Amino acid sequence: MDIKEEALRKHYEWRGKIEITPTPKLENRNDLSLAYTPGVAQPCLEIKNNPDKSFELTRRWNMVAVVTDGTAVLGLGDIGPEAAMPVMEGKCVLFKRFAGVDAFPICIGSKDVDEIVRTVELISPSFGGINLEDISAPRCFEVERLLKERLQIPVFHDDQHGTAIIACAALTNALKIVGKDIKNIRVVINGAGAAGIAIGRLMLKLGVGDLVMCDKYGVVTKDNALNDAQLQMTEISNKSGITGTLSDALKGADAFVGVSRPGLVTSEMVRSMAKDPIIFALANPVPEIMPDEAKAGGAKVIGTGRSDFPNQINNVLAFPGVFKGALAVRARDITDGMKIAAAKALAALVDEKSLSEGIVIPEPFDSRIAQAVADAVADEAKKEGLARI
Amino acid sequence: MDIKEEALRKHYEWRGKIEITPTPKLENRNDLSLAYTPGVAQPCLEIKNNPDKSFELTRRWNMVAVVTDGTAVLGLGDIGPEAAMPVMEGKCVLFKRFAGVDAFPICIGSKDVDEIVRTVELISPSFGGINLEDISAPRCFEVERLLKERLQIPVFHDDQHGTAIIACAALTNALKIVGKDIKNIRVVINGAGAAGIAIGRLMLKLGVGDLVMCDKYGVVTKDNALNDAQLQMTEISNKSGITGTLSDALKGADAFVGVSRPGLVTSEMVRSMAKDPIIFALANPVPEIMPDEAKAGGAKVIGTGRSDFPNQINNVLAFPGVFKGALAVRARDITDGMKIAAAKALAALVDEKSLSEGIVIPEPFDSRIAQAVADAVADEAKKEGLARI
Repeated sequence: MDIKEEALRKHYEWRGKIEITPTPKLENRNDLSLAYTPGVAQPCLEIKNNPDKSFELTRRWNMVAVVTDGTAVLGLGDIGPEAAMPVMEGKCVLFKRFAGVDAFPICIGSKDVDEIVRTVELISPSFGGINLEDISAPRCFEVERLLKERLQIPVFHDDQHGTAIIACAALTNALKIVGKDIKNIRVVINGAGAAGIAIGRLMLKLGVGDLVMCDKYGVVTKDNALNDAQLQMTEISNKSGITGTLSDALKGADAFVGVSRPGLVTSEMVRSMAKDPIIFALANPVPEIMPDEAKAGGAKVIGTGRSDFPNQINNVLAFPGVFKGALAVRARDITDGMKIAAAKALAALVDEKSLSEGIVIPEPFDSRIAQAVADAVADEAKKEGLARI
Repeated sequence: MDIKEEALRKHYEWRGKIEITPTPKLENRNDLSLAYTPGVAQPCLEIKNNPDKSFELTRRWNMVAVVTDGTAVLGLGDIGPEAAMPVMEGKCVLFKRFAGVDAFPICIGSKDVDEIVRTVELISPSFGGINLEDISAPRCFEVERLLKERLQIPVFHDDQHGTAIIACAALTNALKIVGKDIKNIRVVINGAGAAGIAIGRLMLKLGVGDLVMCDKYGVVTKDNALNDAQLQMTEISNKSGITGTLSDALKGADAFVGVSRPGLVTSEMVRSMAKDPIIFALANPVPEIMPDEAKAGGAKVIGTGRSDFPNQINNVLAFPGVFKGALAVRARDITDGMKIAAAKALAALVDEKSLSEGIVIPEPFDSRIAQAVADAVADEAKKEGLARI
């Protein structure tokens, strides 16, 4: 059966991919009086006297809201909050399956930044963390910035930072293969939306020597930047002042990261890059360049977003562990430092023996991932003084 | 161990009374590609083309939001959204345990009616129904009214309507015991807040001959009504124009319903009522009059809110089944007709053999309850043309 048909059939069968399960047993009046009235008054009063106790006496310590407005869902675009739900439920399944984190989908019926922010702020007493998902750029930047300002619980836009963490992890290991120093390399990123800009920012923090952002009009410059986020990137990247097309930018570059559209990169363009090019072509389901063509152009390490090629750059490697770690120490925030720590922990899971052109990151079902990422994130939160326990 | 200590200890042990459980198994890449990308795109597109499909392809068909602002929690008052969480989680446990309905707690950090309404409206794409809980009067009336206007999914304020349904069920059976016709009786309700007014309204719909509302200033009249809801009640109740104190109102009355404070009613006051008085003293944990004192005053049928006396008037008899029924036929609303149907179905569960002064309603662990209530509610929704499937 075709995967599309099979997935649809399964979704009708599941009728929802999450369900709510009670933790206490309720078999008699005594159970009722402990879990509900009159006994429940006691934990209520404890929390009233100290609201932080909600992290010990309710599920808040482990509960993440997966929040979307349905405007940038997968490659489907603005399909609305109801239609976004299967993806958000899927995300909740991954949170629980891979890191034991409880997550609940919140699909918001507004595209207005202030309304989205206020809604999340007002329901935040029910949650220990906020995972933003599939909100279109540039609104997603503002939604995240405002929520980080207003909330004392971690806020994380996975499309940006999840992808950035994995890309940084993969780059770290790919550089070992090609024997280059991160300080000396130039990376070209095509696609200056939420993911592309977040990858660029985090790679610069990771220590990348130079970086050029491209979008559909070519190299992003002060003159053609479409929004504040792109403009800010021009201030911290492109030291050598490259202009022109993606093809121009790739000449002599050491690595390419695509978060754009199928087929934009050719073998010839890869051949114009520096020795042993690294190619992460993440457009889904059809990458910017297919692995065999990239290889024909001389690419040394190749990653895609697909599970049927080596080196799948898959967000599921990051977000479950990132939240698990942030929740474990009740971190106020998820910082760039914590994201870098997550990336390095992921990279370190590929040992020297396994490390090869085809294995620069672990595969999703590697059971060590979530805890390794969580530990790194929690440690860094403590170092930065952001851990509340 | 004291119940308070025991309940607190249990809450620390549970660390939250609900958890999120995935329904699909996720053991390999194929499972991932069905529950998440790329397969998940198909159900998304189905819902995009027809948003109602979200009730078939996601958990929405069975998911209720338990919404509070934490302003009127149990008898504790305005303890805030974080402190309200243990009660809301408890409610979610009851939904699942008694009716298989999934429910999730949403604690809102605002007391502003418009903000609460807008927040619930904006997150409603994630839910199939809205259970309002522990929102103080008179704001709860406005919150419910506005949400009913704006949403196409059922909205139900349990503190009002849950209590009203059980009180009506208990009254229906109590009248069989005392051999009176509902058309000829006069009921006195003490406590003209959310629960009291809802009980009054629904008892009038049930067919009660006359009804007098009292509050701390005595009989509620046009002159002393504290809000619109109380004022509206004066227009549909108190045919004989009784004024004065609760004590005055009780003289010659057939039934008393208290949703007020401990110890307000004495044996003498019961003795002043009509023959074979019915007393539902629901103040918790200490009723308006203790059962033995009511009995000493001649009360025939006595109910309280407590599990350690006969005839516990307990909301858990109603809300799980009410939502189960409303969700089963995807009802647009929960109407007075549906509430009356629920009350009659509950009353009917006490068969002639069991019916006695001490058994006018079934007990919470009677496994027939949720389905009987659900069937009655669903049938009535169909009759009223409010069922969408």
